[in-house]
Amino acid sequence: MQLLKELTLESLEASQYEHLTLEVSQHVATVTLSRPDKANALNMQLWAEIGQVFEAIDQVADIRVVILAGEGKHFCGGIDLAEFSAIFTAKRDCEGRFRERLRRQILAMQDSFTAIERCRVPVIAAVHGAVIGGAIDMITCCDMRYASCDAKFSIREIDIGMTADVGTLQRLPKIIPDGIMRELAYTGREFGAEEARTMGLVNSIAKDKPALDMLVGELATEIASKAPLAIRGTKEMILFSRDHSVEEGLNYIATWNSAMILSDDIQQAMKSRMTKQTPEFKN
Amino acid sequence: MQLLKELTLESLEASQYEHLTLEVSQHVATVTLSRPDKANALNMQLWAEIGQVFEAIDQVADIRVVILAGEGKHFCGGIDLAEFSAIFTAKRDCEGRFRERLRRQILAMQDSFTAIERCRVPVIAAVHGAVIGGAIDMITCCDMRYASCDAKFSIREIDIGMTADVGTLQRLPKIIPDGIMRELAYTGREFGAEEARTMGLVNSIAKDKPALDMLVGELATEIASKAPLAIRGTKEMILFSRDHSVEEGLNYIATWNSAMILSDDIQQAMKSRMTKQTPEFKN
Amino acid sequence: MQLLKELTLESLEASQYEHLTLEVSQHVATVTLSRPDKANALNMQLWAEIGQVFEAIDQVADIRVVILAGEGKHFCGGIDLAEFSAIFTAKRDCEGRFRERLRRQILAMQDSFTAIERCRVPVIAAVHGAVIGGAIDMITCCDMRYASCDAKFSIREIDIGMTADVGTLQRLPKIIPDGIMRELAYTGREFGAEEARTMGLVNSIAKDKPALDMLVGELATEIASKAPLAIRGTKEMILFSRDHSVEEGLNYIATWNSAMILSDDIQQAMKSRMTKQTPEFKN
Amino acid sequence: MQLLKELTLESLEASQYEHLTLEVSQHVATVTLSRPDKANALNMQLWAEIGQVFEAIDQVADIRVVILAGEGKHFCGGIDLAEFSAIFTAKRDCEGRFRERLRRQILAMQDSFTAIERCRVPVIAAVHGAVIGGAIDMITCCDMRYASCDAKFSIREIDIGMTADVGTLQRLPKIIPDGIMRELAYTGREFGAEEARTMGLVNSIAKDKPALDMLVGELATEIASKAPLAIRGTKEMILFSRDHSVEEGLNYIATWNSAMILSDDIQQAMKSRMTKQTPEFKN
Amino acid sequence: MQLLKELTLESLEASQYEHLTLEVSQHVATVTLSRPDKANALNMQLWAEIGQVFEAIDQVADIRVVILAGEGKHFCGGIDLAEFSAIFTAKRDCEGRFRERLRRQILAMQDSFTAIERCRVPVIAAVHGAVIGGAIDMITCCDMRYASCDAKFSIREIDIGMTADVGTLQRLPKIIPDGIMRELAYTGREFGAEEARTMGLVNSIAKDKPALDMLVGELATEIASKAPLAIRGTKEMILFSRDHSVEEGLNYIATWNSAMILSDDIQQAMKSRMTKQTPEFKN
Amino acid sequence: MQLLKELTLESLEASQYEHLTLEVSQHVATVTLSRPDKANALNMQLWAEIGQVFEAIDQVADIRVVILAGEGKHFCGGIDLAEFSAIFTAKRDCEGRFRERLRRQILAMQDSFTAIERCRVPVIAAVHGAVIGGAIDMITCCDMRYASCDAKFSIREIDIGMTADVGTLQRLPKIIPDGIMRELAYTGREFGAEEARTMGLVNSIAKDKPALDMLVGELATEIASKAPLAIRGTKEMILFSRDHSVEEGLNYIATWNSAMILSDDIQQAMKSRMTKQTPEFKN
Repeated sequence: MQLLKELTLESLEASQYEHLTLEVSQHVATVTLSRPDKANALNMQLWAEIGQVFEAIDQVADIRVVILAGEGKHFCGGIDLAEFSAIFTAKRDCEGRFRERLRRQILAMQDSFTAIERCRVPVIAAVHGAVIGGAIDMITCCDMRYASCDAKFSIREIDIGMTADVGTLQRLPKIIPDGIMRELAYTGREFGAEEARTMGLVNSIAKDKPALDMLVGELATEIASKAPLAIRGTKEMILFSRDHSVEEGLNYIATWNSAMILSDDIQQAMKSRMTKQTPEFKN
Repeated sequence: MQLLKELTLESLEASQYEHLTLEVSQHVATVTLSRPDKANALNMQLWAEIGQVFEAIDQVADIRVVILAGEGKHFCGGIDLAEFSAIFTAKRDCEGRFRERLRRQILAMQDSFTAIERCRVPVIAAVHGAVIGGAIDMITCCDMRYASCDAKFSIREIDIGMTADVGTLQRLPKIIPDGIMRELAYTGREFGAEEARTMGLVNSIAKDKPALDMLVGELATEIASKAPLAIRGTKEMILFSRDHSVEEGLNYIATWNSAMILSDDIQQAMKSRMTKQTPEFKN
Repeated sequence: MQLLKELTLESLEASQYEHLTLEVSQHVATVTLSRPDKANALNMQLWAEIGQVFEAIDQVADIRVVILAGEGKHFCGGIDLAEFSAIFTAKRDCEGRFRERLRRQILAMQDSFTAIERCRVPVIAAVHGAVIGGAIDMITCCDMRYASCDAKFSIREIDIGMTADVGTLQRLPKIIPDGIMRELAYTGREFGAEEARTMGLVNSIAKDKPALDMLVGELATEIASKAPLAIRGTKEMILFSRDHSVEEGLNYIATWNSAMILSDDIQQAMKSRMTKQTPEFKN
Repeated sequence: MQLLKELTLESLEASQYEHLTLEVSQHVATVTLSRPDKANALNMQLWAEIGQVFEAIDQVADIRVVILAGEGKHFCGGIDLAEFSAIFTAKRDCEGRFRERLRRQILAMQDSFTAIERCRVPVIAAVHGAVIGGAIDMITCCDMRYASCDAKFSIREIDIGMTADVGTLQRLPKIIPDGIMRELAYTGREFGAEEARTMGLVNSIAKDKPALDMLVGELATEIASKAPLAIRGTKEMILFSRDHSVEEGLNYIATWNSAMILSDDIQQAMKSRMTKQTPEFKN
Repeated sequence: MQLLKELTLESLEASQYEHLTLEVSQHVATVTLSRPDKANALNMQLWAEIGQVFEAIDQVADIRVVILAGEGKHFCGGIDLAEFSAIFTAKRDCEGRFRERLRRQILAMQDSFTAIERCRVPVIAAVHGAVIGGAIDMITCCDMRYASCDAKFSIREIDIGMTADVGTLQRLPKIIPDGIMRELAYTGREFGAEEARTMGLVNSIAKDKPALDMLVGELATEIASKAPLAIRGTKEMILFSRDHSVEEGLNYIATWNSAMILSDDIQQAMKSRMTKQTPEFKN
Repeated sequence: MQLLKELTLESLEASQYEHLTLEVSQHVATVTLSRPDKANALNMQLWAEIGQVFEAIDQVADIRVVILAGEGKHFCGGIDLAEFSAIFTAKRDCEGRFRERLRRQILAMQDSFTAIERCRVPVIAAVHGAVIGGAIDMITCCDMRYASCDAKFSIREIDIGMTADVGTLQRLPKIIPDGIMRELAYTGREFGAEEARTMGLVNSIAKDKPALDMLVGELATEIASKAPLAIRGTKEMILFSRDHSVEEGLNYIATWNSAMILSDDIQQAMKSRMTKQTPEFKN
């Protein structure tokens, strides 16, 4: 069965990135955006690395949950405008071909972020400081979001004169109330952690970055202690439900569980309940 | 027109169930889970009876609204684990056939709960005490949920090492915010009535079980006093909207109302407005 | 390119309506329901004019945002029952043909409201006093809703014995939580501005009608100052997302932006950021 | 696991029907419409029995393929008009309720036919003589259709002034070319076996009824000799593909086969290839 | 009920078009493209008029079927290239706005053709001579197509270097086999009437234009003699089925017929069967 | 714009494959399955290479069309059973994990074939000799199929006791008539080139392999001479249409062409028409 992409934990840990770091500890991977002097602004290199690291993590059975965080004062200030504006000076041999290439480029950028969503284990965003523009697109691909009090959010794309095109307008309406979504997208206004919590964008708030790291770390540890196969199935089902009818979702999980339900985990979990001991699961 | 399944109120009231009770009064049916010594845990018998009772109610024009409640200290503690674990010891003649049978079994279990959703009149869940695992799957099929202060909820499936497969992962994401949904599904953590209200899982809270019964009883009486045909049409439309685009929904209601709108109810309702009297509707 | 419907600002401003007024100022159009002696009740004339005015606005590139408000003590008391009840006395030559005509009539009524949604710029509803029945259908077509403290809402259709058929049951479930939605639709109970805000129906509340006008006016001015093409693209994407999967939405915006992204606006916006001046955009 | 509906072959064979017969031989069930003096016209009794017999067959693992045929000179002359016209004289207490009941009645009639499609094993229609109106709706639920030379087909509904409502307009466009479909539906014109074959409605033609019975019998025997689990999976996948995108279909079969593929059948089939013997499969 | 657009036969007949003619006789409308010196090439005026005439016909209950034909030696040679190439010289103030306008222009052109499909009665295309490019887009909106022997077809867009954008690539794959569709679209090769019939693009062939007119005239007369309401319902259902699942289609027709089935037509049709007389239907 | 995967023709031609060959000439790439001693049976290596080569071709703008053929006496005899049966002896640590891995493996195998469909230029299958099992799955991903007289086809999966899971059951029903599709899938019977042509699986037939190569070569040359951007757009639209409604397809192409239509190709093509010279297009 060679077609299947699978990676060992060792080779994952050995991989090198320029603008992000990856640490793994006790089944929890922590991906940290690491371009702190630029507020972790998304240049093309970082953009590509995000896709690569999540695609790699997806292939390592040892990882059970991922934390996505940012180094320095801000989570992420959005797209690197210097690079972005290069599309205006790009040579255009033929208008049509230039546009075709532009479309493929946008699809490739989306795809890097979508790797977060496709990653089979839960991804927790831990955000602080600036969470702007492309950073919003990025965290809507995560399963859950937690913030420190100082976090400042903004769907900033409108202020550089563009229609957001890497996920915010597609995913955020499925996360927060429709009316609020539109106000934020049309005005680009900044909002804080408390408002983000009220609207459901973040689940809860910590008083500062260290407290946030602790909160998210504990949550990750908790999730990592659960039966891995059931966690992966749960993520698949929630994603499927978002884009399908209830009836289609029911049929899908019935078919899925006819294959997956009889795992060692379930026996392990049952036994633990009786012996009142913490279950130990395989990856 | 014999193909149509229709039932009289009398035959409905005459039906017997082992683990639930059914009472009808003034167009309001109350279905009560009744296995109090087991916290109303869902064994296969109870599971089957839930499907049967709601399928029967659907066929009785006299019923205008249903209350679903639980007897004893808890609404429902979830699946009966003793029965559930039997699938591990089931004889497996052929792996493929065993899995096919498992899939059909899950579909059958889902179908019992879906009977609540398919029932043409509104179903109100009144929950107290433990509302765990399969109980969550069950109440997401109801139209609305109300709780007493002591209610404790948990998507518990993850703790027995399984991916929930009878509706929670399909219906709950369409009821509560996506980020919260995932946190609850991944951690299985318990949450109380107040948090359930904040996230939109329950509409409001009563101070205790008797107060809850009163609250829900009044609501049921209120709904039962409305034009029955319009109530049934409203449920159909809300369900249809959940799984279709707005454009499809608009076309559907236009076609629907071209048939249903000219009822006696509407004339009755109009007349009542003028005479300031309470309208009396046919079933 | 004559097929394209386009209108000048002048011809728009010259158009006359019987039951509504249209004012344009600084790229902001204000449509005011104007039948104050009848609480702006929706008779067929007003209903038709709503469709006409939004279809016209859609064709005027100069307009960047629309405010929808009501004159007098109430935003809108719903359908004009006198006209509505005429369908009961309508001559019915053939039952089938009468029903076909009824269906086409409902579709036409829906279509007038849908013109608000189809209008390519954001539409802000500013509501006060009574917001009843058909008025709810109407404001769910708007992008965002704001209210004064005195606003009173009700999905009243159930009380005239009918299943709402001009949009509430299709659009409201995509705006507010499902459980609340059903309670309101089944009971028709009145709710105030604060509750409307909590459930996400309105974004924020002003203390009275003048404060509401100011709040909404400032918001409109803000949106009108943004890059128009990006605003129009944002509305298109949010609407598309509501009725499609995330994957379909991502592909759509990639294709869209391969055409639209290289606008003068984006260059204008970038330049403004550097010069710290307010950008001036073309229509 | 009592929820699952399963039936023994014995109890199936013991069931009695008024207007159809059921024979089982070597895993092949033959359902024969048996109201020959009325050209097997569909009265409500027969209509209901079709649903019942296919629902029962679906629950008997022993049956691997079904033949649907007609006794006497014709396969089926369509709906029994005497019964059908009763809906015109039905008492109508309230227009709205009457229409609601009518809708539920049509859904029930459709459901009887859909039982053929839902039956997990292939159903082969063997048609001769008249195949008119409701008979077309019925055979479009079958997997494949075969005819004798004398077969005469007609989508007759238009000639009794009605829009066909039990399946033809939904399923036939997915079987024959669109342009031909519309011509036949608008004109109700009769067409013969050869034209039916050319358009893809029937797969092949036999010279007379006995030859047809032989042709279809051999085909049934052939299918019954294949691995039953794989045949059932194949039917499920083809049905799913009809109503879903290719991408959804691929994901579904991958999930399905992760459960079903490792059956005894596949080992049996592999072994047979090597030993050049006919494989013997479990039900 | 003023919102509903309805037109009298008289006002329809009084309308004037520059490049097409409209004749009505015995419930049959014949729309003839009439720019014979240009092979009925589609300039913007003709394009707009096609939309107008079919939108008008849709509103006249007297019309029961439409024939679409071409005057002179050819049915239609496709888009008028002189006008089309104007888009290259169009002034482009802002790239983004120019593209937005282009998109709206294409949508408007599509919409004119879609009026044929939306027209509630069947539309029969009678084609002869050249049927090229845009003409193919146009006839795929018709219900059925008939040709004379001399007809020559070509999906010509590829030869002017463009991706066809007014319907061929969306509708033709739902009419002819997929493999053939792609060959024709990629090569733009010409094909004759006989091949068109074999692939299902046209239903049958007449030896020359007069024979075609007779064939199509008789078919139109036949359809016009059927129950009009049932014909209109049939078209609606076939269109709905094309874009929905079988299950959705079944639910739709059940709801539809609960409104429409009890027409005078059905009683008329039944009576005619007994008296063996030709039924006379209301419009 | 580094995220975009693009490849030069040189690096494509330099790539090496074990079981297939790749030749490029005049914008036409020919991929030849090359394991002739095994009838080009699909082992995992070949399977993987098919995905790789089509993914690579997709990134080379120079390639305008692809031919997929087989070396030796047969196009492809299907899956390599020796490798396939290894899944039965695979070590299974945990039943659930084994099934999860199996599912991912099937998805990976599907994905290799889907690379043919995702490749942005047309892919022409030229088949001869045996075209069995997995080979059918593979050619249904191609745009068009052509065969020599000696070709023998069979959906063979049923004969190894499995439900086909790499594309046939998802794509073939969208290519050939539904009734025939099912017969072939249930019986696994062999059929020849002529029958394949009649049912629409292949577009036309050549008398032998050399004639087939000539036929397909000429077709490829013809397509390669067309405007490349328009060809790529056409493929995208046909694929989109297969899985979406007509209305969605129309909106998509309008958006697409607002970006792509103004290419050099269209100007080149127009000029060529006037000068009657063969146009020369950029890649």
